[in-house]
Amino acid sequence: MTNQFLEQLETPALLLDEARMDRNIERMRRQARRLGVSFRPHVKTNKSIEVTRRIMESPQGPITVSTLREADYFAAHGVTDILYAVCIAPNKLDHVMRLQDQGVRLTLILDSIEAARMLAGRAKAAQRHFDVLIEIDSDGHRSGVNPDSGDLLQIAQFLEGAGIPVQGILTHAGSSYDCTSTDAICAMAEQERAAAVHAAQRLRAAGIACPVVSVGSTPTALFAEQLEGVTEVRAGVFVFFDLVMAGLNVCRVDDIALSVLATVIGHQREKGWTILDAGWMALSRDRGTARQPVDQGYGLVCDLDGRPLDDLILVGANQEHGIMAHRSGKIEGALHLPVGAQVRIVPNHACPTAAQYEHYKVLGAGHEITATWQRFSGW
Amino acid sequence: MTNQFLEQLETPALLLDEARMDRNIERMRRQARRLGVSFRPHVKTNKSIEVTRRIMESPQGPITVSTLREADYFAAHGVTDILYAVCIAPNKLDHVMRLQDQGVRLTLILDSIEAARMLAGRAKAAQRHFDVLIEIDSDGHRSGVNPDSGDLLQIAQFLEGAGIPVQGILTHAGSSYDCTSTDAICAMAEQERAAAVHAAQRLRAAGIACPVVSVGSTPTALFAEQLEGVTEVRAGVFVFFDLVMAGLNVCRVDDIALSVLATVIGHQREKGWTILDAGWMALSRDRGTARQPVDQGYGLVCDLDGRPLDDLILVGANQEHGIMAHRSGKIEGALHLPVGAQVRIVPNHACPTAAQYEHYKVLGAGHEITATWQRFSGW
Repeated sequence: MTNQFLEQLETPALLLDEARMDRNIERMRRQARRLGVSFRPHVKTNKSIEVTRRIMESPQGPITVSTLREADYFAAHGVTDILYAVCIAPNKLDHVMRLQDQGVRLTLILDSIEAARMLAGRAKAAQRHFDVLIEIDSDGHRSGVNPDSGDLLQIAQFLEGAGIPVQGILTHAGSSYDCTSTDAICAMAEQERAAAVHAAQRLRAAGIACPVVSVGSTPTALFAEQLEGVTEVRAGVFVFFDLVMAGLNVCRVDDIALSVLATVIGHQREKGWTILDAGWMALSRDRGTARQPVDQGYGLVCDLDGRPLDDLILVGANQEHGIMAHRSGKIEGALHLPVGAQVRIVPNHACPTAAQYEHYKVLGAGHEITATWQRFSGW
Repeated sequence: MTNQFLEQLETPALLLDEARMDRNIERMRRQARRLGVSFRPHVKTNKSIEVTRRIMESPQGPITVSTLREADYFAAHGVTDILYAVCIAPNKLDHVMRLQDQGVRLTLILDSIEAARMLAGRAKAAQRHFDVLIEIDSDGHRSGVNPDSGDLLQIAQFLEGAGIPVQGILTHAGSSYDCTSTDAICAMAEQERAAAVHAAQRLRAAGIACPVVSVGSTPTALFAEQLEGVTEVRAGVFVFFDLVMAGLNVCRVDDIALSVLATVIGHQREKGWTILDAGWMALSRDRGTARQPVDQGYGLVCDLDGRPLDDLILVGANQEHGIMAHRSGKIEGALHLPVGAQVRIVPNHACPTAAQYEHYKVLGAGHEITATWQRFSGW
């Protein structure tokens, strides 16, 4: 097969700038090394073995997943050390056991005595061993038991009593996505670390070994000053980055490795609009920058070299139509690329945008497509 | 295989209530019959041959598609009369010709002289015939040439001169999604009809036959009082309906055929939150009800029989986590279903929610899953 170039692709298409991705990976690798912790990448963003092989410490892992389908896929590609970082539901335990039967060490998490009882019941009935971390709440944004609560000790002691040794503590400071300064992200990283270490120390004081202390999000992992007492860090979106991360100053716009290739299909010149063949199906409905100082609409428009183009954004989107216009709303002098011209749109949020596609078109030097990497979605 | 029941499904899962769907289809069928127009269903919402077979007038179509991948899929299932209702881009013409070679009559649309010139050039170079409708703008929401403009005649005359007969006029009053009353939807339907018929009459006055006058959106199709001069109507979301349509009073909540089955995985009782294993990946990031009088968050929570449950909605969502709470924000007396309990979440917008799944679990009487229907996404 002869090489393909950007200009030959049918649109919309998901582009992955390999050089930018490799630079982002190297940055996280350096940070994990400096912090002296193991790195357990979250694969929920990329869902691709080609990408994940570049970020894993070994071909067997470790990795973090957000669905059991991710676990299935990576297990089929030889990964055996997998953390499923969503509290376990009873209807997933048959699936968990199938993964165990394939040789996967699948670590589960939970944050309630109810779930602990359910798991202990199934462990006994099925004569199974389960590896479990207790999720604690370090920032109030979602799940997890209060690290200062009696519940934490009760859950741990119940599990140990039921013959399920507590492997450790897990937390995720998702609030870091709402920080408004780098200082705030540093402080959030310390809050995340301190809460997890504190919970682990409480368990140890109660005689529970608690070998694992797992923390992380892309902002806190990259901005943590020290991770004393932590054993592993998790992050996923750093591989690609996105406009939300750029809005947080966690990366620059020209670090963002993911973009959607789109084509001009028409104009409404009297409104300053150019119509593209990429709408919210191609970019996702994510409007994560709407709550940031700079609202990027449905995405920032770049030229084929990946450089922002004349301050154009997608001001609106329908299912398969994007409305491109100047951020300022200017109509006089608005840039109107001809029908057939291509642009690259940098997305608000890498995870939902990538989820709309079945493959990455890997972009090398110039405009050359050097590979097509499969990815998957769903459950 | 023995029958499966709701309670046995791994979550999240996309449920399709067959009885509700059939009722919705019958309603649209009656309306098209009453209006005396042909019905060309839009398959962008369902992307499933099992669903589309129930709404097509014949096994060969006609249908409307939003992507050429939809055209490929339905062509492979024997559909030959397909309208691609997004203005054509040059990088898609090779694909269009492959579909023609398979025996598909694929109608294209365009709204500019630029696109007409491009198409004429390719028709001549490839010695091809293309079927073309001119898209007109009936409501200012997106694409289409002004029906009163000189551009309309110029495009039509150019195409005819280039040996590409203009098959007709197409418009889509997408603004109907923003109407605030049934009267406003009726008025929008008449505006859509009148603009399309007016454009067709202008072409006919210029000696261009213009046999097709195609209009539609789910709200305008269902609320049009008369469609004189129109030859076909298009609509897609009516098959399933969703909370946005219910918010417009186009349907009732208990007409909505699509829901996401989710499981309770934890609680934050002091906040009145219940955590589910369905987040924005399972429901999509669509927040279409946010601009309606009743904001349904990321979806309305129902019991397993599909009845709204104690005024619970998804007040927040992360990638694989949903935060269920009372709409009122009440904490005292908030309903806390146990870990492992299941709920059904009715989505804001059927199209992006369904797009997150590879199959529909078809729900029969009781809680029985009577079939699994494949669907697809992407381009």
